[in-house]
Amino acid sequence: MQTAPLRRPADLSHLSAHEARLACRRGEITGSTAGLAPGHVQANLAVLPKELATDFLLFAQRNPKPCPIIGVSAPGERRIPELGEDLDIATDIPGYRVWRNGEMVEERRDVADLWRDDLVAFAIGCSFSFEAAMVEDGLPLRHVEMGVRVPMYRTNIPCRPAGPFGGPMVVSMRPLKPADAIRAVQITSRFPAVHGAPVHLGLPEAIGIRDLAKPDYGDPVRIGADEIPVFWACGVTPQSVIAASKPAFAITHAPGAMLITDRRNTEFAVI
Amino acid sequence: MQTAPLRRPADLSHLSAHEARLACRRGEITGSTAGLAPGHVQANLAVLPKELATDFLLFAQRNPKPCPIIGVSAPGERRIPELGEDLDIATDIPGYRVWRNGEMVEERRDVADLWRDDLVAFAIGCSFSFEAAMVEDGLPLRHVEMGVRVPMYRTNIPCRPAGPFGGPMVVSMRPLKPADAIRAVQITSRFPAVHGAPVHLGLPEAIGIRDLAKPDYGDPVRIGADEIPVFWACGVTPQSVIAASKPAFAITHAPGAMLITDRRNTEFAVI
Repeated sequence: MQTAPLRRPADLSHLSAHEARLACRRGEITGSTAGLAPGHVQANLAVLPKELATDFLLFAQRNPKPCPIIGVSAPGERRIPELGEDLDIATDIPGYRVWRNGEMVEERRDVADLWRDDLVAFAIGCSFSFEAAMVEDGLPLRHVEMGVRVPMYRTNIPCRPAGPFGGPMVVSMRPLKPADAIRAVQITSRFPAVHGAPVHLGLPEAIGIRDLAKPDYGDPVRIGADEIPVFWACGVTPQSVIAASKPAFAITHAPGAMLITDRRNTEFAVI
Repeated sequence: MQTAPLRRPADLSHLSAHEARLACRRGEITGSTAGLAPGHVQANLAVLPKELATDFLLFAQRNPKPCPIIGVSAPGERRIPELGEDLDIATDIPGYRVWRNGEMVEERRDVADLWRDDLVAFAIGCSFSFEAAMVEDGLPLRHVEMGVRVPMYRTNIPCRPAGPFGGPMVVSMRPLKPADAIRAVQITSRFPAVHGAPVHLGLPEAIGIRDLAKPDYGDPVRIGADEIPVFWACGVTPQSVIAASKPAFAITHAPGAMLITDRRNTEFAVI
């Protein structure tokens, strides 16, 4: 999930990724992480009990576009060393959601006291990374221009199920002029670990979207007569799939409050 | 320019590129070269007097998508060694068009007796190469399914002019389902020397195309309700630009009768 980038005081936007995590840990950063540690990968978080981990990994393996896993903790571990030095899953995200039996029961700023020896943390790639590459190339992002959240839609594209996990793919939408849409396919194709190329463009009804003005998540955005809607698989998909599976216990990040990693966006470019 | 692949006797489709050129030279192959020497690059031909060569090269440099030059002869030379062993520009194409003052005055099977010491030959990449890559990936080509020529349209996209050369870009159109269109962008982006990625998709009116059922060149094709039109820069562009510049003398290939080269399509993939 995403929110529009917030304006940050200069001292925060110049923090390193590690410094930004420490500031989150100390409670000095709340809300969205958009714009923090520019150039660094931010990740969606999903934490599940170990007995669900294999099925969730299998779900991700079968649905890499909506659910691109970039790091997994060992059971009970709050660290994912490949994503960052001194990274604590339970404290370094500015906002968490706690789920019980598929219901969100609590939103809180750290989950250290809820941690258990059987929990496995999954870090999932996020569209911030490919959006950064688009902006770098001069492509416009309407939701950023408008200062709103990207619009997201449930589609009729089924995910390939695994164990209790299944359901429709959720997509985010960015309107682009056709030549920019082609460029966006090229740019985002380089980043399969952060959702990669679009899954659809034009013809929203062909994937079960009846009204672009009524997104299922996020906010509607203006679409010009000379633009087409371009749809990317969205990290909300695993969240909605987890909620639908009603696990006894789960933790996710709060919308827009992502895990800031030490990995650079450019490291995830495959070419 | 293109025509639909013709069915060839097995003995012809198994000729090497060099053998196919020799068969053209001997007059044993006439008409379209589609399907010959599979896997090998076929090229559009434009032959101009030396005094126009610099401006034409500049035009190509400024418009690489419609005019991707893959080989140029030395003035007066009928060979382009980088494109093939024992390759004779004046005899190895099954059909030529001769132009005087912008008018096509003659269609003939060889131009050896018209050759002059001041002529420069340009070999220009052709969509056969990227179409082969699309077919290899399982993408459908409607004009091939229907056994007709690809539909081509004059657009309102201006080429960047150079000397006497200028005019609108001509595009070819292939209807694809949106997910296939995205895949086609990825596949054809690998081949910038043979027109590369599409220049436009959806919204034909945005590039000045009023009626897809009435192509300016080639034949109309069926477009499904679940498909969008995808447009590639077309090698007809340099031909129409040359004709519009009314050079005193020029030679081109006849539609569908291409120069078969020894280069493999895969050599032109940039990644």
